[in-house]
Amino acid sequence: MNSPEIQRLIQFLSKLPGLGPRSGRRLALHLLKKREQTFRPLIQAMQEAENKIVTCRKCHNLDASDPCSLCQDPRRDPSQLCVVEDVSDLWAIERANIFRGYYHVLGGVLSAIDGIGPQQLHVTTLLDRLSSGEIKEIVLALSATVDGQTTIHYLTDQLKDFRVTITTLAHGVPIGGELDYLDEGTLFTAFQARRGIS
Amino acid sequence: MNSPEIQRLIQFLSKLPGLGPRSGRRLALHLLKKREQTFRPLIQAMQEAENKIVTCRKCHNLDASDPCSLCQDPRRDPSQLCVVEDVSDLWAIERANIFRGYYHVLGGVLSAIDGIGPQQLHVTTLLDRLSSGEIKEIVLALSATVDGQTTIHYLTDQLKDFRVTITTLAHGVPIGGELDYLDEGTLFTAFQARRGIS
Repeated sequence: MNSPEIQRLIQFLSKLPGLGPRSGRRLALHLLKKREQTFRPLIQAMQEAENKIVTCRKCHNLDASDPCSLCQDPRRDPSQLCVVEDVSDLWAIERANIFRGYYHVLGGVLSAIDGIGPQQLHVTTLLDRLSSGEIKEIVLALSATVDGQTTIHYLTDQLKDFRVTITTLAHGVPIGGELDYLDEGTLFTAFQARRGIS
Repeated sequence: MNSPEIQRLIQFLSKLPGLGPRSGRRLALHLLKKREQTFRPLIQAMQEAENKIVTCRKCHNLDASDPCSLCQDPRRDPSQLCVVEDVSDLWAIERANIFRGYYHVLGGVLSAIDGIGPQQLHVTTLLDRLSSGEIKEIVLALSATVDGQTTIHYLTDQLKDFRVTITTLAHGVPIGGELDYLDEGTLFTAFQARRGIS
């Protein structure tokens, strides 16, 4: 009953992650009603991003330049490399402003169920970057899931012939987290890794 | 730290209804990673909708033509007119396939808090449509909220000099419920049990 243009718009919006048919319809209507303030600026922003954003061939980050602005930044510490699963993890670490080295985006973690093996991840380019000998520490900042831990084991094995220190993120109680709501695995790890205060 | 293109994309996505900074980032990343399957087709669908969809000057529906395809449909019953608050309500009634007359989209309901008076609604064009004398019944299919009921009272008063039967949806509609969120069964029952006001 709708015009094909509206139907197609709703259809594409509904398929986006986190959206469904109802929120797709709501979004489409919102956009069609706010042409000047929302719809046109959004289309323009999408088009610019689609045209300009490329994948960095060095670290596989998304940016307007290749190599990306992070890889080109001379103020960062070339002795540290942080390996993350996804660009979103890189963004999260950059927002927290806690790491001054360079990054390497794996593009996923090993997963038998999803059929993701080492060939699907950016492992070869990671090993290539180590050959320069400039990197002294690799922080494997991967998720604390089974797949993430499997990937850490695999990468540790691949990296064993290089003279680099390999570290992973500490496990424990998240800041602001209440003990009562924590799962037993995290509590166990936090107890195991307890530290002296003074 | 992100490129301005990505930042602008996230910013615009985050401001859409139902989305926030986190879902905005997630969406932006999803789009940038699925260029061919998702990003480009979505941009194209948005551009086509933005270019082609206009507001019908007769009933204020959104469609690719003006008058809209509903107003142009000769198979519909010209003696019945259904007044709805928003285009989404028209869509909901059309999805339920329960009404064969024509529509009139008010563009809102009276609301003292939001400062919406009769001048902000499409009341004048509604009264104009009645002057032809072809319309015998007006179904005021407005939400069963205080504002919706206030609007029904106001419209009933405005319409009292016309020789039309005014009906409202039956109270099968839950109080406080909005039409767009109702299931089709409830909508159907409400249409069947509509009653005369005057």
